[in-house]
Amino acid sequence: MREIVVFSGSAHSSLAQQICTDLGVDLSPVEIHRFSNDCLQVQLQVNCRQRDVYIVQPLVPPTQEHLMELLLMIDAARGASAAQITAVMPHYAYARSDKKDASRISIGARLVADLLVAAGVDRVLTMTLHAPQVHGFFSVPVDHLTAIGVLAEHFRGTDLTNTVVVSPDLGNAKTATQFARLLGLPVAAGSKQRLSDDRVVIDAIVGDVAGKKAIVLDDEIATGGSIIELLDRLKDLGCTQAAVATTHGLFAGKAVERLRSHPSITEVISTDTVPRPDGFPELQVSSVSGLFAEAIKRIHDGESVSSLFDGVDPTHAPPQPKLPF
Amino acid sequence: MREIVVFSGSAHSSLAQQICTDLGVDLSPVEIHRFSNDCLQVQLQVNCRQRDVYIVQPLVPPTQEHLMELLLMIDAARGASAAQITAVMPHYAYARSDKKDASRISIGARLVADLLVAAGVDRVLTMTLHAPQVHGFFSVPVDHLTAIGVLAEHFRGTDLTNTVVVSPDLGNAKTATQFARLLGLPVAAGSKQRLSDDRVVIDAIVGDVAGKKAIVLDDEIATGGSIIELLDRLKDLGCTQAAVATTHGLFAGKAVERLRSHPSITEVISTDTVPRPDGFPELQVSSVSGLFAEAIKRIHDGESVSSLFDGVDPTHAPPQPKLPF
Amino acid sequence: MREIVVFSGSAHSSLAQQICTDLGVDLSPVEIHRFSNDCLQVQLQVNCRQRDVYIVQPLVPPTQEHLMELLLMIDAARGASAAQITAVMPHYAYARSDKKDASRISIGARLVADLLVAAGVDRVLTMTLHAPQVHGFFSVPVDHLTAIGVLAEHFRGTDLTNTVVVSPDLGNAKTATQFARLLGLPVAAGSKQRLSDDRVVIDAIVGDVAGKKAIVLDDEIATGGSIIELLDRLKDLGCTQAAVATTHGLFAGKAVERLRSHPSITEVISTDTVPRPDGFPELQVSSVSGLFAEAIKRIHDGESVSSLFDGVDPTHAPPQPKLPF
Amino acid sequence: MREIVVFSGSAHSSLAQQICTDLGVDLSPVEIHRFSNDCLQVQLQVNCRQRDVYIVQPLVPPTQEHLMELLLMIDAARGASAAQITAVMPHYAYARSDKKDASRISIGARLVADLLVAAGVDRVLTMTLHAPQVHGFFSVPVDHLTAIGVLAEHFRGTDLTNTVVVSPDLGNAKTATQFARLLGLPVAAGSKQRLSDDRVVIDAIVGDVAGKKAIVLDDEIATGGSIIELLDRLKDLGCTQAAVATTHGLFAGKAVERLRSHPSITEVISTDTVPRPDGFPELQVSSVSGLFAEAIKRIHDGESVSSLFDGVDPTHAPPQPKLPF
Amino acid sequence: MREIVVFSGSAHSSLAQQICTDLGVDLSPVEIHRFSNDCLQVQLQVNCRQRDVYIVQPLVPPTQEHLMELLLMIDAARGASAAQITAVMPHYAYARSDKKDASRISIGARLVADLLVAAGVDRVLTMTLHAPQVHGFFSVPVDHLTAIGVLAEHFRGTDLTNTVVVSPDLGNAKTATQFARLLGLPVAAGSKQRLSDDRVVIDAIVGDVAGKKAIVLDDEIATGGSIIELLDRLKDLGCTQAAVATTHGLFAGKAVERLRSHPSITEVISTDTVPRPDGFPELQVSSVSGLFAEAIKRIHDGESVSSLFDGVDPTHAPPQPKLPF
Amino acid sequence: MREIVVFSGSAHSSLAQQICTDLGVDLSPVEIHRFSNDCLQVQLQVNCRQRDVYIVQPLVPPTQEHLMELLLMIDAARGASAAQITAVMPHYAYARSDKKDASRISIGARLVADLLVAAGVDRVLTMTLHAPQVHGFFSVPVDHLTAIGVLAEHFRGTDLTNTVVVSPDLGNAKTATQFARLLGLPVAAGSKQRLSDDRVVIDAIVGDVAGKKAIVLDDEIATGGSIIELLDRLKDLGCTQAAVATTHGLFAGKAVERLRSHPSITEVISTDTVPRPDGFPELQVSSVSGLFAEAIKRIHDGESVSSLFDGVDPTHAPPQPKLPF
Repeated sequence: MREIVVFSGSAHSSLAQQICTDLGVDLSPVEIHRFSNDCLQVQLQVNCRQRDVYIVQPLVPPTQEHLMELLLMIDAARGASAAQITAVMPHYAYARSDKKDASRISIGARLVADLLVAAGVDRVLTMTLHAPQVHGFFSVPVDHLTAIGVLAEHFRGTDLTNTVVVSPDLGNAKTATQFARLLGLPVAAGSKQRLSDDRVVIDAIVGDVAGKKAIVLDDEIATGGSIIELLDRLKDLGCTQAAVATTHGLFAGKAVERLRSHPSITEVISTDTVPRPDGFPELQVSSVSGLFAEAIKRIHDGESVSSLFDGVDPTHAPPQPKLPF
Repeated sequence: MREIVVFSGSAHSSLAQQICTDLGVDLSPVEIHRFSNDCLQVQLQVNCRQRDVYIVQPLVPPTQEHLMELLLMIDAARGASAAQITAVMPHYAYARSDKKDASRISIGARLVADLLVAAGVDRVLTMTLHAPQVHGFFSVPVDHLTAIGVLAEHFRGTDLTNTVVVSPDLGNAKTATQFARLLGLPVAAGSKQRLSDDRVVIDAIVGDVAGKKAIVLDDEIATGGSIIELLDRLKDLGCTQAAVATTHGLFAGKAVERLRSHPSITEVISTDTVPRPDGFPELQVSSVSGLFAEAIKRIHDGESVSSLFDGVDPTHAPPQPKLPF
Repeated sequence: MREIVVFSGSAHSSLAQQICTDLGVDLSPVEIHRFSNDCLQVQLQVNCRQRDVYIVQPLVPPTQEHLMELLLMIDAARGASAAQITAVMPHYAYARSDKKDASRISIGARLVADLLVAAGVDRVLTMTLHAPQVHGFFSVPVDHLTAIGVLAEHFRGTDLTNTVVVSPDLGNAKTATQFARLLGLPVAAGSKQRLSDDRVVIDAIVGDVAGKKAIVLDDEIATGGSIIELLDRLKDLGCTQAAVATTHGLFAGKAVERLRSHPSITEVISTDTVPRPDGFPELQVSSVSGLFAEAIKRIHDGESVSSLFDGVDPTHAPPQPKLPF
Repeated sequence: MREIVVFSGSAHSSLAQQICTDLGVDLSPVEIHRFSNDCLQVQLQVNCRQRDVYIVQPLVPPTQEHLMELLLMIDAARGASAAQITAVMPHYAYARSDKKDASRISIGARLVADLLVAAGVDRVLTMTLHAPQVHGFFSVPVDHLTAIGVLAEHFRGTDLTNTVVVSPDLGNAKTATQFARLLGLPVAAGSKQRLSDDRVVIDAIVGDVAGKKAIVLDDEIATGGSIIELLDRLKDLGCTQAAVATTHGLFAGKAVERLRSHPSITEVISTDTVPRPDGFPELQVSSVSGLFAEAIKRIHDGESVSSLFDGVDPTHAPPQPKLPF
Repeated sequence: MREIVVFSGSAHSSLAQQICTDLGVDLSPVEIHRFSNDCLQVQLQVNCRQRDVYIVQPLVPPTQEHLMELLLMIDAARGASAAQITAVMPHYAYARSDKKDASRISIGARLVADLLVAAGVDRVLTMTLHAPQVHGFFSVPVDHLTAIGVLAEHFRGTDLTNTVVVSPDLGNAKTATQFARLLGLPVAAGSKQRLSDDRVVIDAIVGDVAGKKAIVLDDEIATGGSIIELLDRLKDLGCTQAAVATTHGLFAGKAVERLRSHPSITEVISTDTVPRPDGFPELQVSSVSGLFAEAIKRIHDGESVSSLFDGVDPTHAPPQPKLPF
Repeated sequence: MREIVVFSGSAHSSLAQQICTDLGVDLSPVEIHRFSNDCLQVQLQVNCRQRDVYIVQPLVPPTQEHLMELLLMIDAARGASAAQITAVMPHYAYARSDKKDASRISIGARLVADLLVAAGVDRVLTMTLHAPQVHGFFSVPVDHLTAIGVLAEHFRGTDLTNTVVVSPDLGNAKTATQFARLLGLPVAAGSKQRLSDDRVVIDAIVGDVAGKKAIVLDDEIATGGSIIELLDRLKDLGCTQAAVATTHGLFAGKAVERLRSHPSITEVISTDTVPRPDGFPELQVSSVSGLFAEAIKRIHDGESVSSLFDGVDPTHAPPQPKLPF
C-alpha cells in the first residue's frame, strides 16, 4: 500500500500537526519563500513519488496568500510525481460566493474549484460547506464531513432540560434538525434576511422558544452579526439564555467583542477548522482533527467515509437498508 | 452581423414557434428519426454555417428522450459549423438534483451541464433554476431569466386589497419578496420540510395571513403536494382564498385533480416554459416567449440581458449606480 | 489488489447476475428512482472507494433511459472515489450512427462515446461493434470482444456436411470468414444495399450456395429485414434450408413473427448481449456471460484480454510469432 | 468580413497555388527551415491576426515530414492570433489506419486527428476519406468533399455505350453507384480480400461485366495491387478494356510501371489531391482545386458547402425536401 | 466591429487610465469588495456582451491579491459573455519562477499561466518577460512587447559620446545589444552569478568600459542588488558614471535608498509597467501606455502587432524580406 | 507491484537494450511497419495491461520519423491499457525551439510536449534539456537527469593539474561550474553570440585560461561550430590543448571532420543519449544507461530520483537540510 505524506501550508499548522498525531504519521516539512517581488515559492521537503499526498490548508485570512500557497503546493506535488493529491480544506471560505446574486460577478466558489483542478488536485476533503450545492462545483471527488456529531458531543451529559436548538436561518434548519435529534431536543429557526455582507435582520422565529434555554447552531461565525441579531430576537421572545455553537469560528472584525459582551450568551463553542481567534479565552474548541485523520485513513484504506456518519446525519451517511413492508 | 437560426426539438414546439414569431424569424425545420433499435437521429434542415444557432428544448417528460434530442441537435449544429450554439432550456428539470443529499448519487444537474458542454454547447438560456447555485454548475455562460415580472403583470389591475404573497418555502422567500414588492404587497412564507419527492409538511407560516387573500408563488409545481399542504395550513390560519402562481407548471401525477378540487383556490396561473397540461381548462397561462425572444435578440445584438430586469429583480438586473453619501 | 464491484442498471440485470456468478462475486445493489418531473436518480448501494467498478448496461430499448442510467451510475461511482470505472456495454446500439451519411446529423456513436467520457468512464468493455472503426470514437481504452467462438461452439458436433456460412453483407464478410474457418466450412456473402433503416435489397450472392445448407451469420438482427431478404435470395439460388446466428438478437418490430414464419429457417441462435425477446420460445441463446466474466477477471488481474481469442479471431488475438523464412 | 490567408507547406504547393488562383487571393509565403539536429521550424510570412487561415497540405510522402510541417504551421497561426485555422488536407493518408485490426496498435487516423486538434486546428477540409467513419475521429468540424462529380465530368461526352462502372471493393460500392448514376451507367463490384498492405485477392465480381468496357473507380491507388488484380479478374470474365479513375493517385512503388504495362487499360485518370507521379505522361489529371476554392469561399461566406454536391451525391448534399404522399 | 471595453483591477489604475486616454475610450468601472472572511468579489460595472474585454493588471505587490482580482475579473467577463478576454499584464512577476532550479517546487510561471487559462483568458498582452521561454508556458496567444524603443528614445538627443551600454547579465545581453544598436553605441556585459534572490556577484565584465560613461540596462529592478554590484564592478574598472535604465522599476526593499545614495549614478529611468515607488523623486519614468494602447488597437483591428517593432528589435518585428544573393 | 515493460522505437535500440540489461528486464519487441503511402504503424508485441510502460526514443534524425513512432507507441500502449506510460527521451531535440525569437513561428518544444500529452504520455524521463525552462512546457511530470556526474567520472584519476573547465556560453556556465566543482577545477566561459543555426561568434572569454589545459563542456554538439569557434578563441589566448565533453554528441554535418582535424583537441567524450556517429573511432563514449536504468527503477519503486544527484548537482538533488544559525 502506498505511503501517506501530509504537508501543511502556513494557514493552520497546529491543526495539520494534530491530524498527523491522530493519524500516527509525521507532518512533512515545507519551505515557503517570498521573493522580493512578492511572488511565493513553496518547496516540499520530502519525497512524494507514488505517495498519497494530503495538503492541509483552510482558506483563512490572508485568504489569497493561503490559496496561492495551496495551489503552489499542489502543483509541486504533481510535478514530484505524487500518486494522488488531496486538498484538505477544513474551511472552504469561497463557498460563500456560490451564486450570481448580482450580474457580472464571478461565482468565486466555482472559480476556485476550477483553479484547484488546474493546479492538479485529485480530491478535496472539506467540512460543512456553506451551501450543499457547492459540492457540485468540483469536478473531482469531494469528501464532505460534518461537525454536528462533534458539537453534539460537547453538550451530551450537560443539563439539557427545557432546551431548544435554534438555527439563525430557515435555509439550513435541516442541519439544526439533525443536531437536535442527536440530543433529543426540539428545534426552532429564525427567518433571516441578509441586507449586506455583515448586516442581517431576523423578522420571525419559527418554533417555540419562550422561556427556554437555546443552543444556537450556525455553520460559520464571521462578524457575528446574524448571531447577535438572533439573540436579540430570542430575548424579545423570552429566551434569555443561549449557548452558541458553530463549525467555522472565524470571529472576524468585532465578533469577539460582540459575543463576549452579549448578556444572553452562556458559552461559545466552535471547532478548530480555522485557527483560534485572539482575545477570546472563554471560547471552547472541540477538535475535528480526529474526524479528518479518520477520513484520511479511510480514504487511504479504501473504506467508506460516509459510514463515519452512521447515526449522525443521513445526508452524509451511507445508504440505509430498507425495511420490508 | 451573423444570422439567427432557431430549431426546436419535440419537447415544446409551440413555445419555439411563438419565440420565433416574437423574434420575427422562421422556426427552422428539424427531422427526428427513431431507428429500429430505439436510437435517435436528428437532422437539422437548414444551413447553420457561421450562424448563431438557438435550440429550444425544455427538459420535460419524457425527459431522457428530450435530453438526448437536445444533445444530438447541439452536436449536429457543431458539426455543421455553427458559429455559436445556445441551448434554450426554459425549464431545466435536472436542476432539482443539485446536491449530494445522500451518498453515492450523482449530482445530476452538474452531470447534465457537463454533457451539454461535451456535446458542444456554447451558452445556456434558461429561466428560474430551482436553486441559484445551479448556475455555477455550467462552465459556459448562462443567461438566467426570471418570470416574476410576467406573473406580477397578471395581477396588476386586479383587486389586491387585503392580499398577501405567500412562499411555500422560506428557502426561496427572497423571490416572493421581489414579487410582492412589484405588487406593493406584504409577504409570508411557510416553513417546509420535504419528506420525500412528493411528500412535504409545512409546520409553520411566518408572517400574517389570517383573514387575508393569498397569492401563493412557487418556482415549479410538479405533483402539487407542497401547494396543497400550504393551502391547508393557510386555511387553518384563516386564509381561505388563494391564487396560485408558478413559473414551471408541470402538473404531473394527480396535480391537476388536486388543484381543481381544492376549495381555497380561486385561480391558477403559470407560464409556458413547459407544455400546457391536459384536462385543466381553468389554468391561465402567461407566455414568456416575449422574454425569451427579447433575450435572444439582445444576446445576438450584444446588448445587456440583465437590463431586461431593471426594476424587476436586482439579482437579475445590471449593477445600480451608487448614491453619494 | 483492489476489489471488484459490479453494478447493473435496469437494462439487463439477468446478464449482470450471470457475469457475477461466473466471476464469483456478488452483484451489488443499485436503487433507481424516478422523480415526479421524470428525472432519474441512481444510488449505488455499496462502497466504491478505491474499487474497480464495472457497470453492466447494454444500450437496449428504452435506449435513452438506459443510457442516462448508465451516465448517472458512472458519475456516481466517480464521485464515490472509484479507482477505475468500466462501462460494460455488451451491445453498443449507437454504433449504428457511425458516419455522416447525410448532412447536418450527429455521428451519434462518437457523441455517446464523448458523453460517457464526460461522465467519467475510464474504460469500455463491449462486444461486436457494428463497424470496427467505432473503436476509434472512444478516447479511453476499449476491450472489444467477439462472440464468434461462442456461436461456432453451438454448431460443433452437429451435422455440417454440405453447409456454407453466409454473410448478408460483403462489408463484414471478414467476420463470417473467421467463423467459417472455425467450423471448417466455405463462406458466401450477399451484396447488400440499404434503402432505409429497415428496407434492404440483396442483389447478388458471392460464393456457391446452390443445394447447400446455410448458416447465416449477422452481427445484429433488429427488424430482421436483411435476413429475410437474404433467405429469399438464397432460396432463389436453391438453398432452401438455413440456420440463423447472430450476436445481438434484438428482434424488434415484426422480427419474431417474420423469422418464426419463414419456411427456410431451421433454427435461430443468438447470444444474451441483449434481453431475450418475448414470444420466441424456439430461440436458442448461447450465453456470453462467461466471456465477459473472464475479460473482467483478466482486466483486473492485468492479463491479456486478446489472448482470450487465440485461435478464434486474429483481429482480436495477440500478435503471433513470425515464422523464420 | 475577415480576410482569408492561405499558406502551403512543402507537400503540394502547385495545388495550393491553383486554389489561390481560383479563389482570387495570393498564396502567402512560408519559410521552412531545418536545423542541424533535423528539427523543423516554419515561419508564416504574413500577418494572420483575426484572419481566417487555410493551410494546404495533403499527407503525402515523406508523410511524417509533411505532418510535422502542418502541425508547426497550425501552431504558429494560433500563436499569431488567427481567428480560425482550417487544415486543408486534400488527401488524409492516415485514414487507412482506421481500426484495430490487430491488437496493441494505434488507430493512427484517430491519433493524427487528435494531434491536429492539440496543435490548434479549428476545422478540417478534406476529400474522399478512406472510410466514412473517419469523419467521426475528429472533434472539430470536418467538411468532407467528394471528387466523383469531377471524375464523372471527365467521361461526359465520351462514348459510354456498353460501359459499366466497376468498384474493386463491395465495401465502397456505394460511391461507385453514385458515380454510375451520374453517367447513367450500370455498376458492378469486386469482392476483395486484403492479404497484406499490398497483396489482395478478388474472388468474385458481382454484376454483369462480360463483353463490356469498364470504368474502374477507386478512392486511392497506392501500389496499384488491387486494381491490377481486378483488371485480371475482369479480363477472365471477358471485359478486356478498362479506364481507371481514382481520387487519390499516389502511384507508389511499382504502380506506374504496372499500370502503364497492363494490356486492358485504355486510360488512367486521377485528381490532383496529391502531386503528379514521375514518369507517367499518359496520366490524365482533373483538378479539384476549383472545388476546394469554392468550399473555402463558402466556408468563409457562411454558405452551405453541402449544396456544392446537390445532384452529385446525396451523402454530401443538403437534406432534400420530402414529397407529400 | 466589436466594441472595446477596458477594466482595471486595483494594481495600477493610473496606467489603465492612461492607456484608455491614448486609446480614446473610457476606462470602465469595477467594484471590488472584500468579504468579512477576506474573500474577494469583483463586479464589472458595464455590459461586456460580445465586447472585446481588456483587463489591465500588472502582478505587483500585494501580488496574490492582484492575481486573484485578475482571475475573478476574467471569470466575471467570461460569465458575462465577453467575445474575447485579454489579460493586459505589463509586468508578469511570476515569470521569475521559470525553471525547476530546486526539486519539488512549482514552476510558478507555468502554474499562473494555467490558472489564467482556467479562469477563461483568451489572450495575454505583456511586456519584457524575464526569460523569453516563458512565452511558451501559455496555451493562449501572447503578444509580447518590448520597451527598448521607449527607453532608447529617452537617451536620444543627449550627449552619448564615450558611452557604453552595459547589461548586468550575459544571459540577456542580446536585448542590450539591440538597445545599443538603436543608439549607435558599443555594448558590454557582466558575468552574473546569483547567490540568492537578492544576493548576486558579478565576477567579470566582458567588453571595454574603462573611462567610459555607462548606460546600465536591466529588465527588472527589484531590490537593486544586481545593479549595485555591477556599478561597483564598473567603478573598479574605471567607469565611474552610469545611467540606469529598466523596464520594470519595482524598487522593492532598500532599492530606492541604495540607488539614490550610489555615487556613480547620474540618473535612473524606468517605464510605468508598475506603479511609481514612493520616495524617489529623481526617478524618471517614460510611459509605455502608448505602446499598450497601440497594441490593443492593432489587436482589435486585426493589424500586425510585431510591425510596431519594425526597426526596433528583430525578435519582436515581423519577418524581413530576404535579399537575393 | 506492477511490472515494468520497456519498448524501443528505431531511434536508438542499443541504448534501450543496455538500459534493460542494467535494469534486469527484457527489452520487449515492437514491430514497425511502413505502409505503401508512407504512413507508419507500430505494434507492441507483449501485454501492457496494468504495466508501467517505458518507451525509449531519443529524438534523433530522421527526427520526424522517430517522433511519429514515439507518438504511435504511446497511443498503442494507452489503448492496450497500460497503467502508466513514460516517454524516455534521452535527447529531446525540439528543446532548441524554446522561444519566439522571430514572429509567427511555433515554439516547437511546447508543441511537441503537447503532442506527447495528446497521444497519452503520463511522464517524461529526459536528460540535459537545452534550456531548463523547457521543463515547464510539459503538463506531465518530468524527471530531468544530468550527465555531469558521468562526464566528471571520466576525468577523475587523470592529470588535472593546470586545467580549467570552459563553457562556450555564459548562459549555461552554471552547469560548467557544477562540473568544475566535482573535479576541483576553476571555470571560464565564452561570451557567445549566435548568428544562425550553425554560425556563432565568441567575442570574449571570462576567466583565466592562458597557458592552461581546457576541458570544454557543452550540452549538445551538432555541427560543432560553437566548439571550433571557442577552441580558436582559446588558442588566441594561449590555451592550445583541450578535451571536449558533451552530453548529446550528435556530430551532424561536418562536425566529425572539424573536430578530428582541430589541432587543440586531445580527446572528445560524449554520452550515449544519441547513437554513435559514423567515422569517429577516437570518440570516447561514457554510457548513461545506468543512470536511466536507476531512474526507472526508482520511479517504479517510488523512491526519490533527485537523490540520485546528491553531491552532484544541487539543482537536481533533493532539498538540503539547513544549518542552524
